[in-house]
Amino acid sequence: MRVEILCTGDEILTGKTVNTNYSHMARRLADVGLDVHWGTTVGDDRASLLAAFRQAGARAQAVIVNGGLGPTVDDLSQEVAAEACGVPLVLSEHWMERMTQSYARRGRIMPANNKKQAMLPEGAEFIDNPIGTACGFAVTIGKARFLFTPGVPREMRRMLDEQVIPRLLKLSGMKAVTKLKRFHTFGIGESRADELLAGIPGLAIDGDIKLGFQAHYPQLETKLAARGADEADLARRLAPAEAEVRRRLGNFVIAEDDQTMEGVILAKLREGGHTLAIAETFTGGNIAARIAPLVGAETVFRKGVIGGDVSAERLRTESGASHALAVAVQLDEGPDRPDFGAAITVSLADAKGTVSRQARLVGGRDWVRVGAAELGLDCLRRHLLGLPVDERIDFERR
Amino acid sequence: MRVEILCTGDEILTGKTVNTNYSHMARRLADVGLDVHWGTTVGDDRASLLAAFRQAGARAQAVIVNGGLGPTVDDLSQEVAAEACGVPLVLSEHWMERMTQSYARRGRIMPANNKKQAMLPEGAEFIDNPIGTACGFAVTIGKARFLFTPGVPREMRRMLDEQVIPRLLKLSGMKAVTKLKRFHTFGIGESRADELLAGIPGLAIDGDIKLGFQAHYPQLETKLAARGADEADLARRLAPAEAEVRRRLGNFVIAEDDQTMEGVILAKLREGGHTLAIAETFTGGNIAARIAPLVGAETVFRKGVIGGDVSAERLRTESGASHALAVAVQLDEGPDRPDFGAAITVSLADAKGTVSRQARLVGGRDWVRVGAAELGLDCLRRHLLGLPVDERIDFERR
Repeated sequence: MRVEILCTGDEILTGKTVNTNYSHMARRLADVGLDVHWGTTVGDDRASLLAAFRQAGARAQAVIVNGGLGPTVDDLSQEVAAEACGVPLVLSEHWMERMTQSYARRGRIMPANNKKQAMLPEGAEFIDNPIGTACGFAVTIGKARFLFTPGVPREMRRMLDEQVIPRLLKLSGMKAVTKLKRFHTFGIGESRADELLAGIPGLAIDGDIKLGFQAHYPQLETKLAARGADEADLARRLAPAEAEVRRRLGNFVIAEDDQTMEGVILAKLREGGHTLAIAETFTGGNIAARIAPLVGAETVFRKGVIGGDVSAERLRTESGASHALAVAVQLDEGPDRPDFGAAITVSLADAKGTVSRQARLVGGRDWVRVGAAELGLDCLRRHLLGLPVDERIDFERR
Repeated sequence: MRVEILCTGDEILTGKTVNTNYSHMARRLADVGLDVHWGTTVGDDRASLLAAFRQAGARAQAVIVNGGLGPTVDDLSQEVAAEACGVPLVLSEHWMERMTQSYARRGRIMPANNKKQAMLPEGAEFIDNPIGTACGFAVTIGKARFLFTPGVPREMRRMLDEQVIPRLLKLSGMKAVTKLKRFHTFGIGESRADELLAGIPGLAIDGDIKLGFQAHYPQLETKLAARGADEADLARRLAPAEAEVRRRLGNFVIAEDDQTMEGVILAKLREGGHTLAIAETFTGGNIAARIAPLVGAETVFRKGVIGGDVSAERLRTESGASHALAVAVQLDEGPDRPDFGAAITVSLADAKGTVSRQARLVGGRDWVRVGAAELGLDCLRRHLLGLPVDERIDFERR
């Protein structure tokens, strides 16, 4: 099925806002096996919107429209959709009532211009927005079904998953229940992960699993996406592939799904009743900044020191923390360049003593700084989980 | 003049890469008074590219195409452009020679597949790329002039400024020399800046100045863009408006053009032969991380401390630094929410004593953390420049 995404709004068109709604939507669609064939961006301009609707309606089978559902005069999506369909706008009593109640619950009167958000093209299919005043809707223009979503990212994301994707899967004749399993690794490059995971999709019971990667240095996200008849069926079919991915990526898996490296570390420290101190140099506060601001870190994070030559042992003693992490970076001489690098020394001290690990990273100042911070945190994670701290990563040179 | 941007490539189409090339191009064009009317994204797919070229050629007067100029088989821009023009691809001897020489200078032999990058549609206008192997070119398709640029951001940015924008301005009949003056402020919201700067465009000698804003909390960028006959003419015409913007934004201007807050602070510290220590709490290393990793900071940045209750005076004494900055954050109780806030105390100690400033920021944990870091750095900047440290900012509640 040919799916297109049509983003509207002057903020996006003029580049004032980077279009992360587009990339989020396209990635989520790819995750469930729907490919985006074309993307269009137009401003809050009647003629452009109408032309864009008609052109997309001539090319695609399904079009997700994002933006233009707000209460102000420059929000034109409903109006232009009605024009493209050749129908009038009619009031959705249901949505009007929902908005009125939502304001009333917060002890407020709904502003008059919100009524505009309940005006939908006659005959449009209503698409619920459980967390905002811009409801979605669907109409047919040309040979495509158009699904309209609000520009507010939080609202768009929820509606995409709960409302839009199920409708698109149904339109395309695909099984409607989807599951996305994500593994986050540190230390494995995309090409090696691809090799390591050869044959994984074939392990799924009854097939129909898609394996994908999303690299955001220094982490790599490995995604297993599947479609099935229902949740239980999906879980059963994915289980062997999930287990095998976990086994093959092994100690490099730092977190799964919505977990993060720092969240895993904090949970482990809290679980053990531990406290933490961090000493860093060139990373200049970036390591501490991953842990210290987390909710729940206030009782765990004891102290951070930047600069100077503080050993993990001494930091542990001075801070009174049960665990101390020290990440020292010895930079190459000279100006920044692609082969600029550094020698990293990570040391970890706890009641049992000190372990340490050395690595050389190469790739320019920023690359080295980001990599050194991740390496330090990963050593701490491995230490807390009883895994080997000194396992070679793809980014290091020996 | 109707200008469109057409981005090509599977990485962009599938959302794997967020399309920051688009937003950069659209903003730069707006800076010089050229408005983008339409954006299109298609993948590395012959049929889609051809259709996209033809549709854009029917709508616009000028189209910037980005991507698809690489040496591999999935890079199709030249080929499809030739097809759309109904001409063959011919070898650019000039570009072949330039690429061969460039490889030779680095002591390397040019790979055979690079030849593809010198194959341009017959009759195409050559557009130079001084820093890469993907040259640009221009052809006419339908009623639009198409300008092709490489997807590598560094190459695209340079070619956009040096090659593409001058051609577009000429096409549109606008004066070809442009200047963009930027002021970075902290503490003024976009709407107040807009009020403060009312009438500024009128101050330009012979008019033709555009005032614009780009908010990226906690900073605001104010832009003055102008076109003129030549550089000297432009400088002369912009001068009164520049001076007036500087005067009205006053102490809130933290940097101009490519300068940054942290760069200004570091330069001032170095100039005075000073050294710096930083103590922070909830910002958790984010303040130190702005200064410590800068080139040249190694002789200035003495020490950073995160957590604990360290006064600026004590930190100064203990670290031996000439200047100490302490930013303490007293968070509200309870879970994160939009009206979650904190009381910030910034203290600065130097040989003359200690000054401090208090502020309350509201807007959720992340908002407060980012704002507190900026407030701390801004107090240091103001102190070093002899400006009042305690000037109310728009983000604080009293």
